Amino acid sequence: MIAATPRLQRAPKAIFLTSSRRYPLPLPSAQARCYAAPKSSTPPKPRPYEPEKPLVSARPKTSQDATRLANLPKQEEAKQSVKAPYIRIAVGVVFIGSIIYSMFTSPLQLTEAPSIADRDSISKRESGVTEKSPMRLRMEALIKEKQSEIVAALQELDPANKFRTDTWSRPAGGGGTSCVQQDGNVFEKAGVNTSIVYGTLPRPAIEKMRVNHKAIDPDVDSLEFFAAGLSLVLHPQNPNAPTVHLNYRYFETMDNDGKCNAWWFGGGTDLTPTYLYDEDAIHFHKSIKDACDKHDRGYYPRFKQWCDKYFYIPHRQESRGIGGIFFDDLDGQEKDQEQLFSFVKDCLSSFLPGYLPIVTRRKDMPFGEREKQWQQLRRGRYVEFNLVNDRGTSFGLNTPSARVESILMSLPLTARWMYMHEAEKGSREERILGVLKQPVEWV
Amino acid sequence: MIAATPRLQRAPKAIFLTSSRRYPLPLPSAQARCYAAPKSSTPPKPRPYEPEKPLVSARPKTSQDATRLANLPKQEEAKQSVKAPYIRIAVGVVFIGSIIYSMFTSPLQLTEAPSIADRDSISKRESGVTEKSPMRLRMEALIKEKQSEIVAALQELDPANKFRTDTWSRPAGGGGTSCVQQDGNVFEKAGVNTSIVYGTLPRPAIEKMRVNHKAIDPDVDSLEFFAAGLSLVLHPQNPNAPTVHLNYRYFETMDNDGKCNAWWFGGGTDLTPTYLYDEDAIHFHKSIKDACDKHDRGYYPRFKQWCDKYFYIPHRQESRGIGGIFFDDLDGQEKDQEQLFSFVKDCLSSFLPGYLPIVTRRKDMPFGEREKQWQQLRRGRYVEFNLVNDRGTSFGLNTPSARVESILMSLPLTARWMYMHEAEKGSREERILGVLKQPVEWV
Repeated sequence: MIAATPRLQRAPKAIFLTSSRRYPLPLPSAQARCYAAPKSSTPPKPRPYEPEKPLVSARPKTSQDATRLANLPKQEEAKQSVKAPYIRIAVGVVFIGSIIYSMFTSPLQLTEAPSIADRDSISKRESGVTEKSPMRLRMEALIKEKQSEIVAALQELDPANKFRTDTWSRPAGGGGTSCVQQDGNVFEKAGVNTSIVYGTLPRPAIEKMRVNHKAIDPDVDSLEFFAAGLSLVLHPQNPNAPTVHLNYRYFETMDNDGKCNAWWFGGGTDLTPTYLYDEDAIHFHKSIKDACDKHDRGYYPRFKQWCDKYFYIPHRQESRGIGGIFFDDLDGQEKDQEQLFSFVKDCLSSFLPGYLPIVTRRKDMPFGEREKQWQQLRRGRYVEFNLVNDRGTSFGLNTPSARVESILMSLPLTARWMYMHEAEKGSREERILGVLKQPVEWV
Repeated sequence: MIAATPRLQRAPKAIFLTSSRRYPLPLPSAQARCYAAPKSSTPPKPRPYEPEKPLVSARPKTSQDATRLANLPKQEEAKQSVKAPYIRIAVGVVFIGSIIYSMFTSPLQLTEAPSIADRDSISKRESGVTEKSPMRLRMEALIKEKQSEIVAALQELDPANKFRTDTWSRPAGGGGTSCVQQDGNVFEKAGVNTSIVYGTLPRPAIEKMRVNHKAIDPDVDSLEFFAAGLSLVLHPQNPNAPTVHLNYRYFETMDNDGKCNAWWFGGGTDLTPTYLYDEDAIHFHKSIKDACDKHDRGYYPRFKQWCDKYFYIPHRQESRGIGGIFFDDLDGQEKDQEQLFSFVKDCLSSFLPGYLPIVTRRKDMPFGEREKQWQQLRRGRYVEFNLVNDRGTSFGLNTPSARVESILMSLPLTARWMYMHEAEKGSREERILGVLKQPVEWV
């Protein structure tokens, strides 16, 4: 029999993520906000939606798979391509991180003409990414840069426990990187993911998307899309330090020649304390509000309310945490693309100054069994929200061949459920529960 | 900083559940399989389905609520009754334990004529419950008897840690009892629940139910129903001892005068080991098979397959455990009511001899950190199934005013999620994973 909490085996030492570099040269067609690639002589045919057929995973699961895939004769490739129907994108609702999950599921695209992903790849290699590049390349560069920056800063907090880095690419174009630290000195679990997806939307998904984005062509049977996102969840060891979540993403639909059809931004960040420190809550919200106010004084109140609504656990009648901001579908109706990109960039930049001082002052505070147990119970609620209520997780798990380990990276290392647990009257536990039942205006 | 696993505060000493006694006298109308209560002069009017209005909880949440409810003037009661729409029963799919959850949600039924629940209550008090009583009273008596029997046997395994017993009743009739033991010497968490529900089905629910039960009158706007079930989940402390789940239930629809319209049985039991002991798996399956074979040689293979299908976690591509049996909608099309009741009774009776020898021989086996960690990871999968895939839990959590503590009693006390955990080649961990990916024929 043992009494000690089992300690995790350390993850193997990882190749640390290198910072994405900025390419110096502009693209020839860089004036266009949405990049129109040169028309190919044989554009890939739109393929019909075939929901009954099983989806073919675009990602080799083992190195054997990868070898098999690489050695696949052309004829076999064509068969694979025909067998693979389009990703079922459940859209029209707000998804946190759904783009990350969908990247594993769009079909192999094997056509004679270079795909949009191929053309983007050539463009990046030959001309670099600058302020005049199409937005999808700029967003990709931004999230990679921010991932490096954030992981480096978190690594500094706990140099002894290296982040594990898993990078993958998709045959259809795009790829992703998961950086995860487990059972470290500061974090019980910390995950920082990026993903870039090139895929094809089927007709039903297009129709749903048109509800929010009228720029989408209603008369096509399928539509190319691009999605890029950064997603992060940090669960600290110390019950005095709060869990934090962040996700920012960009979505674009394109004609077959790569011309942008519709685009929008989504995202947000929110804090989930085990114990409430008003100064932390105020600091976190203030840093977000400052980022918002630089762009629109209406953003913070509007997106704060949206956040409180999204991260609500109906069956517990309480919020997952003390909020932050959340938004989706911000497109040309809201502000121009340049302004929104700049807003998202500032939100991303406000993350480290908003969270690092909090975790730094809490990570070494003393705590006892009672505090640890309360943290574990709150972790249980976090699991409940993510598995029961989060539309992004649900979408991801329902997507055949999704990379489950990346989706469920958001779950804490450990959690606890006690029957009929009640917080003591007048206790610190009762105080945070009160705030979770009734959101507070922190700034 | 602490390293030790936090130990749970002991639950307050509970009033132990008394065995439900069998009443000696037959009912006057006892020949009828489905009991037709005397027609009241003013039968309660069917009320329309009003899905837009919030459901009114039938269960007082605090003692103050209970007092307020008891003191409610008649006029107020009538208002409450009008405001309360019908429970939204998501039927047509298989629910584990859904009846337990629904019991909290049907509206207050305040009519001048005695309700079916009232009449059943009078009948039990005046005439007792015998073999000739209507099935709903017999099933209620059976599950209460089995709950007592099972809780008493489990209590004997760990006399120092008393089960906590919570009993409640509903104004509309019926009630339930949850018996829970937490962080004991043998079980990390053990819950044994019964529930009796009287409620009213709205039109959409009736239509869905008719798919499987043609005896249901298609021409009514609402229909009285009765449900009774016993539900149990035991999570042992020792990783060598398997988690077990059981649920047996009876459902009946009735005309306003209490005459049975349609009825069916559902349920099953299944085992979830952390480590596989073939002798345990064989013993568990054999005890169920023996119970099945007494009634129909086709039952075990059919219901075993149904179980493997139900307890499958698609996003993990593995089963929750090593199965058992599962069935639903067994009605007159299958066998007569008496035969099915007898089958369910034998299934219930086979539980203790099927599980007790296993937990008895495993509960004191030595184990280390590795085994405990593997158990915690498997607990994580249990949580995933219950929160993501189990239709009963999902139904319960989506039911406004459900008793969440009873629904989530099925979750383990503690669970763990590790990023990219892989079982060692040739290990015992790898062996059970293999069986979870490919169900085995144990007997």
